[in-house]
Amino acid sequence: MHFMNKSNPIGVFDSGIGGLTVVKELNTFLPRESIVYFGDTARVPYGSKSNSTVIEYALQDAGFLMKKNVKMIVVACNTVSSVALDVLREKFDVPIVGMINPGAKAALSSTKNKRIGVIGTDSTIGNAAYSKEILKSVVSAKIFEKACPLFVPLAEEGWTDHEATKIIAREYLSELSQEKIDTLILGCTHYPLLKDVIQEAVGNEVKLIDSGGAAATVVEDYLQGRNLLNDNAEKRADLFYVTDMPRKFTFVAERFLGRKIPNIMKIDLDEIR
Amino acid sequence: MHFMNKSNPIGVFDSGIGGLTVVKELNTFLPRESIVYFGDTARVPYGSKSNSTVIEYALQDAGFLMKKNVKMIVVACNTVSSVALDVLREKFDVPIVGMINPGAKAALSSTKNKRIGVIGTDSTIGNAAYSKEILKSVVSAKIFEKACPLFVPLAEEGWTDHEATKIIAREYLSELSQEKIDTLILGCTHYPLLKDVIQEAVGNEVKLIDSGGAAATVVEDYLQGRNLLNDNAEKRADLFYVTDMPRKFTFVAERFLGRKIPNIMKIDLDEIR
Repeated sequence: MHFMNKSNPIGVFDSGIGGLTVVKELNTFLPRESIVYFGDTARVPYGSKSNSTVIEYALQDAGFLMKKNVKMIVVACNTVSSVALDVLREKFDVPIVGMINPGAKAALSSTKNKRIGVIGTDSTIGNAAYSKEILKSVVSAKIFEKACPLFVPLAEEGWTDHEATKIIAREYLSELSQEKIDTLILGCTHYPLLKDVIQEAVGNEVKLIDSGGAAATVVEDYLQGRNLLNDNAEKRADLFYVTDMPRKFTFVAERFLGRKIPNIMKIDLDEIR
Repeated sequence: MHFMNKSNPIGVFDSGIGGLTVVKELNTFLPRESIVYFGDTARVPYGSKSNSTVIEYALQDAGFLMKKNVKMIVVACNTVSSVALDVLREKFDVPIVGMINPGAKAALSSTKNKRIGVIGTDSTIGNAAYSKEILKSVVSAKIFEKACPLFVPLAEEGWTDHEATKIIAREYLSELSQEKIDTLILGCTHYPLLKDVIQEAVGNEVKLIDSGGAAATVVEDYLQGRNLLNDNAEKRADLFYVTDMPRKFTFVAERFLGRKIPNIMKIDLDEIR
């Protein structure tokens, strides 16, 4: 087993910047833990790519984090979580937490009528990742899934309260509402930025589940259970690595993280391939 | 100079499937010419990536086409055309036609009041590619540019006549309308699919310029001038290569091309790197 030290950072990776919403949750739940974030902005998005391509990239991304001596890895990307988690766990000897299982569990804790909606990218929905995970635990659950590909660009554009976003949300979500779901999983790390519009579209009686937040509580439980929480008074600064630094990067990324990003480093794709 | 044969195909590449709208124009203008298309669907989109990354990818994409003995290359991607054309021309010894110069020239032929609008991705607009090209010829022209990042996902979603698309188009284009432009360059190969909505948003008095269509006429002129038009009665079948075959690929690609795609081959990224 990989040597683990309490003061080692938690590694978090995503295809791009969406995973920063998960870092935000980790910062809130575990303020002493330091984070090494890896965002593969040169090859984003993964959600429209084939499973074999996603697995290849995920192995490279996690491999980069391993070299930073992370004590565990959070796969802050629903696409990777839905297609590559087993391969990653076979290859790397640190605990690896994805988005699907925590999100599915949180939804099952929340639902009363066992009618659960799931929204995500084409890839996550096409793989039926949340459905499979939920039905493993509760075979009688009814799952209603819907791909919402426009939500990612709308979140990145910052149109979180725009009339067009509201119309699009109503169109995407009307079927789910008609199915009388009482719980809706936000199965994409971008979606928490649109949660007000999504809540409005499905109505206040539907409980929204943020998989990133659910994953953060799983990470906390895990580290606590194995006595691996950082017990230094001070945490080291979070570090952020990206494979490309697009024009709007800082503007968008800081909105996702909810604060300034002081340490962003661009690394070359050749370093991880 | 690279050996050129009249019956050799024209190479066309793009970051993904948007360039298929350019193939459609080439098929219309030059029905005897056969096409080899390369779409880098594993790394799409280029528009949000840095210039150095785009140049690296473009060299690989064009290199792939060269191995197919193309007699010329059409860069059916505004992002690549705006940042990598000089590097490509230095490296490869076939004629290379981009989107920017043909689109800029067509706009200058169309405009009467010399007030020209340009819409495109963040990258194309950020590089002011069309502005620079137009102002090289007509320094008194007034150019008004606007990035419209939501148009690509809307076109791919097929929402070409959707209420949300109309609202978004009005929001993106209202500034340009106020500037009294009489010509608007569609500076992204996806945008021809939205031309009805765009036309409605700017009004019928504004002439829309499709850079892909403009490029096809440049290709025709070039081949004619050098006696390189294919003079066989029959053309060979067009070939389509992609680096990834996403779930919705066929559905979206056939809408862009305007017909069925019989010969799609997936090639591994390792083959072109």
